[in-house]
Amino acid sequence: MKVTILGAGAMGSALTIPLSDNGHTVNLWGTEYDAGILRVIRKGDPHPRIGVKIPDRVHFFDADQLRPALNGSDIVVIAVSSNAVRAITRRIAPYLKRNIILMIVSKGLEEYSQGIIILTDVIRNELPKNLKDEIPIVAVGGPSIASELAKKLPTAAVYASTELEAAKISRDTFVTPYYRIKISSDVIGLELSAALKNVYAIAIGWCDGLAKELGEKTLDNVKALLFTQALREMALIVKIMGGDIETVYDLAGVGDFEVTSMSKERRNRTFGELLGSGLSPERALSELKKTGRGVVEGYLTCDKAYKLAKELENRGEINLSEQLPLLKEMYLVLFNGKRVKDAISDFLRKI
Amino acid sequence: MKVTILGAGAMGSALTIPLSDNGHTVNLWGTEYDAGILRVIRKGDPHPRIGVKIPDRVHFFDADQLRPALNGSDIVVIAVSSNAVRAITRRIAPYLKRNIILMIVSKGLEEYSQGIIILTDVIRNELPKNLKDEIPIVAVGGPSIASELAKKLPTAAVYASTELEAAKISRDTFVTPYYRIKISSDVIGLELSAALKNVYAIAIGWCDGLAKELGEKTLDNVKALLFTQALREMALIVKIMGGDIETVYDLAGVGDFEVTSMSKERRNRTFGELLGSGLSPERALSELKKTGRGVVEGYLTCDKAYKLAKELENRGEINLSEQLPLLKEMYLVLFNGKRVKDAISDFLRKI
Repeated sequence: MKVTILGAGAMGSALTIPLSDNGHTVNLWGTEYDAGILRVIRKGDPHPRIGVKIPDRVHFFDADQLRPALNGSDIVVIAVSSNAVRAITRRIAPYLKRNIILMIVSKGLEEYSQGIIILTDVIRNELPKNLKDEIPIVAVGGPSIASELAKKLPTAAVYASTELEAAKISRDTFVTPYYRIKISSDVIGLELSAALKNVYAIAIGWCDGLAKELGEKTLDNVKALLFTQALREMALIVKIMGGDIETVYDLAGVGDFEVTSMSKERRNRTFGELLGSGLSPERALSELKKTGRGVVEGYLTCDKAYKLAKELENRGEINLSEQLPLLKEMYLVLFNGKRVKDAISDFLRKI
Repeated sequence: MKVTILGAGAMGSALTIPLSDNGHTVNLWGTEYDAGILRVIRKGDPHPRIGVKIPDRVHFFDADQLRPALNGSDIVVIAVSSNAVRAITRRIAPYLKRNIILMIVSKGLEEYSQGIIILTDVIRNELPKNLKDEIPIVAVGGPSIASELAKKLPTAAVYASTELEAAKISRDTFVTPYYRIKISSDVIGLELSAALKNVYAIAIGWCDGLAKELGEKTLDNVKALLFTQALREMALIVKIMGGDIETVYDLAGVGDFEVTSMSKERRNRTFGELLGSGLSPERALSELKKTGRGVVEGYLTCDKAYKLAKELENRGEINLSEQLPLLKEMYLVLFNGKRVKDAISDFLRKI
């Protein structure tokens, strides 16, 4: 197989490892933002984000080499940040042909004319008319820290597609003894879980920051309470949106949420910790920038998740304050100047 | 109300705090093993396990003062280690009267003539014949680290009873602004979740130990995979035993499991970490003893959980190897000399 990966960030680059081990031809295309990374990995030095050398058999392509990068590919993997998914799909659309499979590892939501939509719908929107129903899209979820996958440490993922055959082909292409892949038909559940867990991971981070602020060692009881509440709210949103609750309680939901919210160096959790220790969202974001850690996906997605919840409330499907109280408190903290301490107090009153 | 707590360990002692804040009369009775603790807290020094002074209004009773400790109580709370629940119930049985409520915060299973049973059934078995159906039993679950509750840091619990009225009375007796209590009728789901999470927390600890052993910083992808699998297996066992899967995905299940498996200083997790770093169960247990940390509930319960699973397999209700592969690997590591590394490899092959 020939596989092209779009985006030379952590996850896109990590996926070259199992693909190379399986003997496939692998093209890694870097965006304009990846130029620095490409310079490093072309020299054979370890990838700065995942600490591993990219296999020799991988072919590198610069931002202006999109067409040759895509030439003859069987599978194209979109691995850019979530807010660039529409733009990248537009750029590749002219070069796409029937019989390829599109995969997406980006996780987020998009605000579009018809409201909040999932990223596979963003892609579908941008496909050329004659290919709209011809190209299967496979969404990737599950608890996968890229640097661990790159080191061939055991990792499990879920590949979801409305066309199961495409999910199976993708699985067979990527699966190795260290990279285990389950398939699923619940794209909605997987994508919503993947997007929402980034949001709720921020609230888990709150507890560590607030503990410090209060001079306590831990606030682990609160953390467990918020963890449980987050899952409950994710399940409610997934159910109303037509996904499967089972997905929330499986690898793509609770599994991915666990790793995102507990693993020490994850951006969303760290962002939440800074908020919990009393920083404003703006200060916290600029602190994170100083350490070279870029996009906080959960921050971008919280606003959209809240708008989605508002849509659902307007349609009479939920009572936001009663049924999604944690999302509401998160929104108030991130976009309305509320302090974490007050948000947690107000949330507790609803238990 | 007059409340007697049996067991002056961490959780029993922590519960005196909300009870005192609510103005109740509180008796704290220590077992023979609690003599040292009683000596300390009687002097007004902080409780050695939870770091907090017990309120002045609490009355202390030594092991040989069981009768006066129970005299006139409306609620009796059993807060001894799980393997002492039958013995303590036998001891208090002669002094129990109609119209009291029994609560249990101990978490575990017991092997009895009819097979593996939950602790509320152990208690029920030992109640005097004329009171067997007269005394309601309330089981306590949820993510509650005792030392945080004792410091009045926000904590949420679930009180479950087949007699909801008793659960409500208990809730109204204990609830404070910092101690939030939900009630439930799913005693089976709550007790099984509470017992099994101690077992599976050991496997979560494996990942931290094995990471060190392998010279890796983390094995967080594996950890998330095992976390998810543990929940799946807990849900299966609860369902077959007649409990409610919802309980597993709520505070008494995933909430309690999260705090037990992630909070750094929990015994079960630490025990698992020692196993993961290559120690035998015997060595790991004796290491834990050295640090003064006693019973590893999950170790005791794993054997019983496995026997329960075997019972279910013999009844044709499950295929243990296929449906509870993690429990099987845990049993092999804890009681059959298997190394954690091999257990994880064998488990991964089943994904």
